[in-house]
Amino acid sequence: MSGIDGCLVKYSSAPRATPKNDTKDTSAIIVLDHGDPTMYESYWSKIGNKCDITFNGDNSLSYFANGKSLCWFLESKLEEQIKRLHNVVGSAIVDDHYIVVGTVSSQLMQAALYALSPTYQLEPISVVSATPFYSAYPEVMDFVRSGLHKWAGDARTFKKNGSYIEFITSPNNPDGVIREPVVNGDQGKLIYDLAYYWPQYIVITSPANHDVMLFTISKCTGHAGSRIGWALVKDKEVARKMTKFMEISTIGVSKEAQLRAAKILEVICNSCLDPKMENFFEYSQSLMINRWNRLRQVVMANDLFVLQKYPLQYCLFRKDFYESHPAFAWLIYKGGEEEDCEKLLKEHKIHTRSGSRFGSDSRNVRISMLSRDEDFNIFLKRLMAIQRPTNGN
Amino acid sequence: MSGIDGCLVKYSSAPRATPKNDTKDTSAIIVLDHGDPTMYESYWSKIGNKCDITFNGDNSLSYFANGKSLCWFLESKLEEQIKRLHNVVGSAIVDDHYIVVGTVSSQLMQAALYALSPTYQLEPISVVSATPFYSAYPEVMDFVRSGLHKWAGDARTFKKNGSYIEFITSPNNPDGVIREPVVNGDQGKLIYDLAYYWPQYIVITSPANHDVMLFTISKCTGHAGSRIGWALVKDKEVARKMTKFMEISTIGVSKEAQLRAAKILEVICNSCLDPKMENFFEYSQSLMINRWNRLRQVVMANDLFVLQKYPLQYCLFRKDFYESHPAFAWLIYKGGEEEDCEKLLKEHKIHTRSGSRFGSDSRNVRISMLSRDEDFNIFLKRLMAIQRPTNGN
Repeated sequence: MSGIDGCLVKYSSAPRATPKNDTKDTSAIIVLDHGDPTMYESYWSKIGNKCDITFNGDNSLSYFANGKSLCWFLESKLEEQIKRLHNVVGSAIVDDHYIVVGTVSSQLMQAALYALSPTYQLEPISVVSATPFYSAYPEVMDFVRSGLHKWAGDARTFKKNGSYIEFITSPNNPDGVIREPVVNGDQGKLIYDLAYYWPQYIVITSPANHDVMLFTISKCTGHAGSRIGWALVKDKEVARKMTKFMEISTIGVSKEAQLRAAKILEVICNSCLDPKMENFFEYSQSLMINRWNRLRQVVMANDLFVLQKYPLQYCLFRKDFYESHPAFAWLIYKGGEEEDCEKLLKEHKIHTRSGSRFGSDSRNVRISMLSRDEDFNIFLKRLMAIQRPTNGN
Repeated sequence: MSGIDGCLVKYSSAPRATPKNDTKDTSAIIVLDHGDPTMYESYWSKIGNKCDITFNGDNSLSYFANGKSLCWFLESKLEEQIKRLHNVVGSAIVDDHYIVVGTVSSQLMQAALYALSPTYQLEPISVVSATPFYSAYPEVMDFVRSGLHKWAGDARTFKKNGSYIEFITSPNNPDGVIREPVVNGDQGKLIYDLAYYWPQYIVITSPANHDVMLFTISKCTGHAGSRIGWALVKDKEVARKMTKFMEISTIGVSKEAQLRAAKILEVICNSCLDPKMENFFEYSQSLMINRWNRLRQVVMANDLFVLQKYPLQYCLFRKDFYESHPAFAWLIYKGGEEEDCEKLLKEHKIHTRSGSRFGSDSRNVRISMLSRDEDFNIFLKRLMAIQRPTNGN
């Protein structure tokens, strides 16, 4: 799932995009609480005009798309490039799936819940996910007090007598771990949130092939401002109901955003196939490897925190052995369970998100690894400067 | 409110956009059931490259907008042009209102309900609108069985002991009539849906000035594919809660769609102020007048139907006397109440929407007046050919 995710910014203190060419105020707080993927600007600046797209005044006036998809507002160019991307990367099986486009995975998540919730049931169906779970889940499930579904918390403690829906976020947000279903009940329906299943973050060991899979361009290419996500859905009736959700809630998805997303995915696919272009995923992975190596060095040096470890595996896309370099670092403070790691880092002008927001404990924080270079460098410098608090004992 | 509105197209029979340059199959059914505003393509084709907008690969990656608005994802260019448009046209008071951008008015409508529904109430608040009401209202209110609000039908028969929310669609969809609140209870909250309050449809007698007003670019400029709407909201706390709804449901609104909408509104404002440009609203109004005159002639000639009449009023924008030329014709069949006007027209290959969908009766139908010229001409020809059915008595 994407990045603002449940931080639900208060307008008065809403972080603003740092203008790209402005000189950073080095005394300001570094906001790594949400996963704003501005790291990717460097690639897209280098790509020049290859990714330009122009809209004329008379383009895309109609509600309807030009394709023949079950999802009647899905632009055929976007459908084509989504399929091409999954095939080029090997990240998912698309051929026997319907594609439903949405205003990012937040909306698709609600659409999937709408489609999978039983229609004629007096009680809302329970929705679970294993801790640490994506911090926006509880609010997204319950914000309009739906009679269709209700958030039921940690999948590990869920009593499985009856029907339920389980979200499997893999790799997981916040901790980057590859996940499998946890409840394994007879009457469970599964939604796979695969926002981060791309080669810069994770080792592609096999193409994902599940009944309902959610993706977003935000974390794949960095274009969070476009608000484009898509679902790959095996069952025709589920895809139809998800499309209906989108119809009622927003009557489709912006054509400009869809057509620009198609262009961006086209350029990314080309970059993987054309040796004269800089491969987007190789470039992004090298940035992630560099950042993770530097973060691990700092964490090792000041000896206050622990970072999640990831296994070395063979990547079918890169044809080599790699480990994960997730979009978020899940930092665990070595102090006792009572320690408030978010508070500690905030005192050092690093704004992160507490583990308590993810159904975990406050010793942990989630830290975005996708900021601009300048912010990331200041973050490391400040983290390095933190010393174990002396408690007077 | 915008156009697909509750038709909730079945994918198998979903109407497709007729490619602009294709020759129309004159035997095909003419779909005037939803208000797809393709009529406006002619203006935007003539405008040439004045409205072009290009996105580079590195534009708008961040979730955050560059403005300082309470609505943290609202692009400042769009905010500026929305204010300018309302001031140029005189359609609404903007200066003491907050602007919240949404994925059209469908989403803003849900956001307004979320913001105005009492938080700590056991029973959902009743939501009403006077018949004939916009056909999507019942489904939009109830599709996720919210515990916050529930559709309670016709405002005229609503018993006003207690709190409620009333939608006032003005001019009304489907019948184009100017509306006022109907319930007038002590504990009512009002949402004004002003999607059609623009000079091509209605006489601008005064700038609208209500607590919550919803607008959409779809019916103002014809760019339904962009999915951009906005709310003007007087109360800061209501605007903040509406922004929060948008945050949870879609984490903002597509930047591409917002920036293109800003460009479109800028060109429209320029066209009103620059005598060398063709004034968008004058051009559109002249199309509407022409279509309505021809429709009234056909209706008078075959003597089977009645059309709604509208008063002659002084328009502050056009500085002359006009009557309304709504985006939909509300056609009333002269037969008995049992008559199914939608069915009758369908036999003549004209697809309209039955009055029964608007809480009214099936003698009435709603017909889009915003199709392309070719479709409108075929519609008139077919309508002209309808004769009173002989029932053998």
